Amino acid sequence: MLGRVNHIALAVPDLAAAVETYRTTLGATVTEPQALPEHGVTVVFVTLPNTKVELLEPLGPQSSIAAFLAKNPAGGMHHICYEVEDIIAARDHLLLSGARVLGDGNPRIGAHGKPVLFLHPKDFWGTLIELEQV
Amino acid sequence: MLGRVNHIALAVPDLAAAVETYRTTLGATVTEPQALPEHGVTVVFVTLPNTKVELLEPLGPQSSIAAFLAKNPAGGMHHICYEVEDIIAARDHLLLSGARVLGDGNPRIGAHGKPVLFLHPKDFWGTLIELEQV
Repeated sequence: MLGRVNHIALAVPDLAAAVETYRTTLGATVTEPQALPEHGVTVVFVTLPNTKVELLEPLGPQSSIAAFLAKNPAGGMHHICYEVEDIIAARDHLLLSGARVLGDGNPRIGAHGKPVLFLHPKDFWGTLIELEQV
Repeated sequence: MLGRVNHIALAVPDLAAAVETYRTTLGATVTEPQALPEHGVTVVFVTLPNTKVELLEPLGPQSSIAAFLAKNPAGGMHHICYEVEDIIAARDHLLLSGARVLGDGNPRIGAHGKPVLFLHPKDFWGTLIELEQV
C-alpha cells in the first residue's frame, strides 16, 4: 500500500529564519513561501533529489500545527506523507485493520491539491502519517 | 550540500509489533531485524520506492534512543538522515556557520557502515539531522 515518501513535514516557529538555515547552513534549495489559509499554514519546500521536506509555519488562529508548536516551541518533526494509488481502498483497508483515520474519514484536498487523509499517531507508534493519492 | 534523504528514523518501544503494523496494516516491505549492539539499537528498514524508513528499538543499557523513548513512550519520529558527498567538507561548512556537531566532531561509522555525523537539533529547529557520506 505505501508508495513513495512524498514529503517529511517539519513544524517551525519562524519560517523565514528556518529557510535561511536550510538555504545557507545546509546548502539546500528552498521554494518561495506559499500561504495556505485553508490549511492554517505557510509552507516552503526543501527540494531534495528523491523527495522533499516541507517546512510549516502556523497561519491564523485555526492552524493545525499551533498545538504542536505549543508543545515543541523550537519546532520539530511533524508528519510523514506517503503516496498511495487509491486512497479510498487504502482507507477501507486501514479501517478494517482497526486503525483510526482522523476527521470524518473522508479524504480532503491537501496542500498539494490532491486527496489526503491523516492517520491517528496512536495507532502508528507515535508518528502522524498522511496518505496522499497521486 | 544536502543530498538524498537516506532514511527517516522512527523510534519504537516494541519492534516486533511495529513491524507487524508496517507489514500488515500499512502493506509495506520490511527487512529482517538487525541487532547493532555498538549503536545500542535493533533496526529494521521499511523499504519504499524512493527512500527508507528505519524503525529503531533500544538495545542494551547504553542505547542512544532510550532517553527519547522515556520522553515519548509510544515512540515517535527520531531523526532524518541526508546523504552528503564529503562529510568533512560538510562538517567544516557547518562549524563555520556556527552549527553544533554532536560528539567530538569526528565522523563515526554509522549503522550502514558509512561515516556519519549528527547535528544539534537546537540549531535545526528541533529536528535531529544525521549526515551520511555515501
